[in-house]
Amino acid sequence: MTRTIVASATREVVIGFDQPFCVIGERINPTGRKKLAAEMVAGNFETVKKDALEQVAAGASMLDVNAGVTAVDPNATEPDLLVQTVQIVQDLVDVPLSIDSSVSAAIEAALKVAKGRPLVNSVTGEEEKLEKILPLVKKYDVPVVAISNDETGISEDPDVRFEVAKKIVQRAADYGIPAHDIVVDPLVMPVGAMGTAGKQVFALVRRLREELKVNTTCGLSNISFGLPHRHGINAAFIPMVIGAGMTSAIMNPCRPQEMEMVRAANVLNGTDANCQTWIMTYRDYQPAQAGNSGAAESGNGNGQAPATPAGRRRGGREARMARMGRG
Amino acid sequence: MTRTIVASATREVVIGFDQPFCVIGERINPTGRKKLAAEMVAGNFETVKKDALEQVAAGASMLDVNAGVTAVDPNATEPDLLVQTVQIVQDLVDVPLSIDSSVSAAIEAALKVAKGRPLVNSVTGEEEKLEKILPLVKKYDVPVVAISNDETGISEDPDVRFEVAKKIVQRAADYGIPAHDIVVDPLVMPVGAMGTAGKQVFALVRRLREELKVNTTCGLSNISFGLPHRHGINAAFIPMVIGAGMTSAIMNPCRPQEMEMVRAANVLNGTDANCQTWIMTYRDYQPAQAGNSGAAESGNGNGQAPATPAGRRRGGREARMARMGRG
Repeated sequence: MTRTIVASATREVVIGFDQPFCVIGERINPTGRKKLAAEMVAGNFETVKKDALEQVAAGASMLDVNAGVTAVDPNATEPDLLVQTVQIVQDLVDVPLSIDSSVSAAIEAALKVAKGRPLVNSVTGEEEKLEKILPLVKKYDVPVVAISNDETGISEDPDVRFEVAKKIVQRAADYGIPAHDIVVDPLVMPVGAMGTAGKQVFALVRRLREELKVNTTCGLSNISFGLPHRHGINAAFIPMVIGAGMTSAIMNPCRPQEMEMVRAANVLNGTDANCQTWIMTYRDYQPAQAGNSGAAESGNGNGQAPATPAGRRRGGREARMARMGRG
Repeated sequence: MTRTIVASATREVVIGFDQPFCVIGERINPTGRKKLAAEMVAGNFETVKKDALEQVAAGASMLDVNAGVTAVDPNATEPDLLVQTVQIVQDLVDVPLSIDSSVSAAIEAALKVAKGRPLVNSVTGEEEKLEKILPLVKKYDVPVVAISNDETGISEDPDVRFEVAKKIVQRAADYGIPAHDIVVDPLVMPVGAMGTAGKQVFALVRRLREELKVNTTCGLSNISFGLPHRHGINAAFIPMVIGAGMTSAIMNPCRPQEMEMVRAANVLNGTDANCQTWIMTYRDYQPAQAGNSGAAESGNGNGQAPATPAGRRRGGREARMARMGRG
């Protein structure tokens, strides 16, 4: 059974086929957030701290930490800024971190100060990346996200992306890095632009799991790019991709609909033992409060009290099965 | 490609692996609804009509019609009542119907008056059922729901349930009924009582599809029986079971969260061409109105305007991919 172990100073998280889905909070990332970037450059980490606390409170298993403020010379600025950010975050919350940078020197600088066993985000199939990142992964004995693109870019052909992932796993093995320390990102395409994007990634995740026996991750919200009501697409994508075998995602844990689908998929995937997390989270759930139903209750608009859940549907079969299931 | 064709007088619906998920509205069913049962016995079909219109408006592809008012002698009362109900519903709405009864005489009576090509719900692996229902299915050339239990009851072992389904398909073949006219219900257990219920049914649906090449259905809400916030579990179950290959379900289409997951799963499963239904349904979607976000926006609670969707996540990879996907 593939198990990728990540840890903070005090907390270990296992990414694995038999584990609850690992939610990697994406928010500490100045890419496209000009205000946050400006704050970080000015040495103001209040938003970073707020994002760290909120994401952990919302249920993130890990936090991604990116300090790519897109300065003119990231090689000069990013190492120090990433180190600072990592230190601030790990002093504030106890979840493991994902060290996210395209600057190898920043990754190494952060690895030197990060406590526990962080995840490196990321290596690709590009030669230069492989040669810079894999030695660090080996030296610091940490797991790494492997993104399945290379010098030729991102292939639309999932078989090519599989081969890139396979190459990275093989190259890692040459460095003595085991497959269970590689978390492959098969690259999720926007389904609004490529109608097969969903089925493609489900098949790819299945292959990665069965053939390479690796854990997987993705930038979850990519799937819904360009479509209206993106959170609805994201929410359905979560159980589907978990059903296909994906074991983690970089996503926004501050969206209740998405986190609800993560928790429910864990129940359905058998990784929430005795539905304990589900019951703890939702035992006092009031649909009206959360506003998830709204027009939903129109189905009971005939004025009767809602029927008991069992026995109402399909000639009592549900009631029979429930009894059986409990007997 | 397996295609089960159902039809009303004017509308044909195809259940199939390459088709949008077929939502069979469950509400016209007096089982456990005492007030509805009393109304129907008294010849008052106002609730039936309301349920028919609401379910079709909410997006049901078909309507299940059950008139099991649990009288002392259902054999005497149910045929006439089911005939009446079917006639009222088919005069009111144009979706195909599922004729739902445990009384064979009621099914035959309803088949005589039903227009188009209704679905018979259901036959089981019980000898008596097979001998009564399959000749009707052949005689009226209609498809049938095959529930995978027999005289020994409902097995907790999915292999046994598979064998029951296989036996029904074989027996149907003896009557000249093709496999594509059998829609197997593999029986969904409550995951709160049996932690493996989800994984079990996903594996079973896959086998039914790959080995027997049949369409499948289920009483969807069974999965969440006994758990708090059942709609959350149901909502995640829909994309997962669609991902596993299920092609229809008997469910309540008047629940927006569940229907949203059906529509999103169709997008992700590649059966909503060009995301047309999704875009039409949600292009003007306002999360605040529907109330699906609520605390959701706390992730943007730092006061900044939301970042553009592309380019915010993971170092601009999303933006790159979106361009690629669109290029």
